[in-house]
Amino acid sequence: MHVLWVSAHPDPRSLNGALRDEGVRALRGLGHEVEESDLYALRWNPVVDHADFAHDPEERLDVLEESERALRSGTLSPDIRREQEKLDRADTLVVQFPLWWFGMPAILKGWFDRLFVQGYAQGVPHPETGRAMRYGDGGLAGRRAFVVTTVGANAATTGPRGIHGDIDEVLFPLLHGTLWYTGMRVVPPLVVNGTVRLSDAEYGAAVERLRERLAALPDTPPIPYRRQNGGDYDEHLLLRPELAPGEAGIAIHRTGAAPAEDCEHTGGTAEAER
Amino acid sequence: MHVLWVSAHPDPRSLNGALRDEGVRALRGLGHEVEESDLYALRWNPVVDHADFAHDPEERLDVLEESERALRSGTLSPDIRREQEKLDRADTLVVQFPLWWFGMPAILKGWFDRLFVQGYAQGVPHPETGRAMRYGDGGLAGRRAFVVTTVGANAATTGPRGIHGDIDEVLFPLLHGTLWYTGMRVVPPLVVNGTVRLSDAEYGAAVERLRERLAALPDTPPIPYRRQNGGDYDEHLLLRPELAPGEAGIAIHRTGAAPAEDCEHTGGTAEAER
Repeated sequence: MHVLWVSAHPDPRSLNGALRDEGVRALRGLGHEVEESDLYALRWNPVVDHADFAHDPEERLDVLEESERALRSGTLSPDIRREQEKLDRADTLVVQFPLWWFGMPAILKGWFDRLFVQGYAQGVPHPETGRAMRYGDGGLAGRRAFVVTTVGANAATTGPRGIHGDIDEVLFPLLHGTLWYTGMRVVPPLVVNGTVRLSDAEYGAAVERLRERLAALPDTPPIPYRRQNGGDYDEHLLLRPELAPGEAGIAIHRTGAAPAEDCEHTGGTAEAER
Repeated sequence: MHVLWVSAHPDPRSLNGALRDEGVRALRGLGHEVEESDLYALRWNPVVDHADFAHDPEERLDVLEESERALRSGTLSPDIRREQEKLDRADTLVVQFPLWWFGMPAILKGWFDRLFVQGYAQGVPHPETGRAMRYGDGGLAGRRAFVVTTVGANAATTGPRGIHGDIDEVLFPLLHGTLWYTGMRVVPPLVVNGTVRLSDAEYGAAVERLRERLAALPDTPPIPYRRQNGGDYDEHLLLRPELAPGEAGIAIHRTGAAPAEDCEHTGGTAEAER
């Protein structure tokens, strides 16, 4: 694999810093290539603005339009281009962060906001139909994505019946709305819970789980989200009535047919079906 | 009402800028007091870092611990304090933004990351039980919150069966995990769809809906999310098995009993029950 590991914690001596170091070391030990974007170390600017697009601040800014124009004309801000080039080289993206207010720290959210411009990650037309590719296909297709997050709350409270909401659904905007949207295969996230008081033994177990997940990553079946153009959605992009009939909510956008456990040994299938 | 209106678009001449101006004008016309935090105009720094807490960068940073220490000792960064003081004065928070990657722009996410520190918005102990107050009670109780967001996609595709996922669930990390978590009453969001190509008539209709929602805000029934200490969760903070039996996912955290339509005229009740 050629991995881009993006991380976002203000202190490299933190749990997140330690997990990243262990993860990167494990990947390199397995012979994989790893590039890193430690956003705090990079002093990454997360704020989309006129300057991203060499756009005249006296003129009204249409973000989608200007970002695509700047992409095409090679005038995107150099810090954005550098990060896009790292992603261009990678076949695997690891996104690692402490969960703050049930989402990414701002510095990381702004990595997506600024990099994933129109014509690059989104709004890329299908070469034949001309329709924008999304959800299972798109500008970043051919890559795998793996989210690693640390959460203060214990595992039960971020589980299916826990008060904070099922973490897989809480992460939907990132897993489905960002990574899958742009065409990446998204494997189930690794959630390290109970980080407010983590014992040495629990830390050791977390490192072990991380190493196992990384070793298995090339063959890990992705979350079976539905593909935009796989036949599950009608021409208005609504889920066909015969699928998950009468149901609503974000859970309907994964197929019930292929839970991760059942396709442990079919990791290649999802790639092959494209 | 005393309203704090927080907005986050890089250009005041945008749709978001226009809606904000209309909204603020409407509120003032109704006799309400309005303060504004236009985060781009403020050049708001969204990145949590040592400097927020007057913390020595040579020392390891525990964000929760240091943020609470800085809060108690009055050493939180002045830009954070200024925004907290605006929120302290408000009984109503309006959060307005363009939906980027199914979440807030980074500059706005970082307003929550930096302001909502331990001991202020979270981790505030109940005066009697000593247990941290959350979900329906907490450091920001007594306030109403109203989210206004603009979305490129059309309304059907962000509806219950639409490909992007039901917008009310996509916004769960903000509505439930942030606003309700800290004790605010959260009214249903106003979602302005189809903004990539908005006709003049559609813009006029959006302004009209915004004005109506703002006029009705004092009496709008909040989303019936479950309260942490309202009896619906067991001692491990799992939803009791007899509620939404056999179900999972984030939808179970609102009561089915009180859809917004049924309690149109009981706006005061939710406040009174506290």
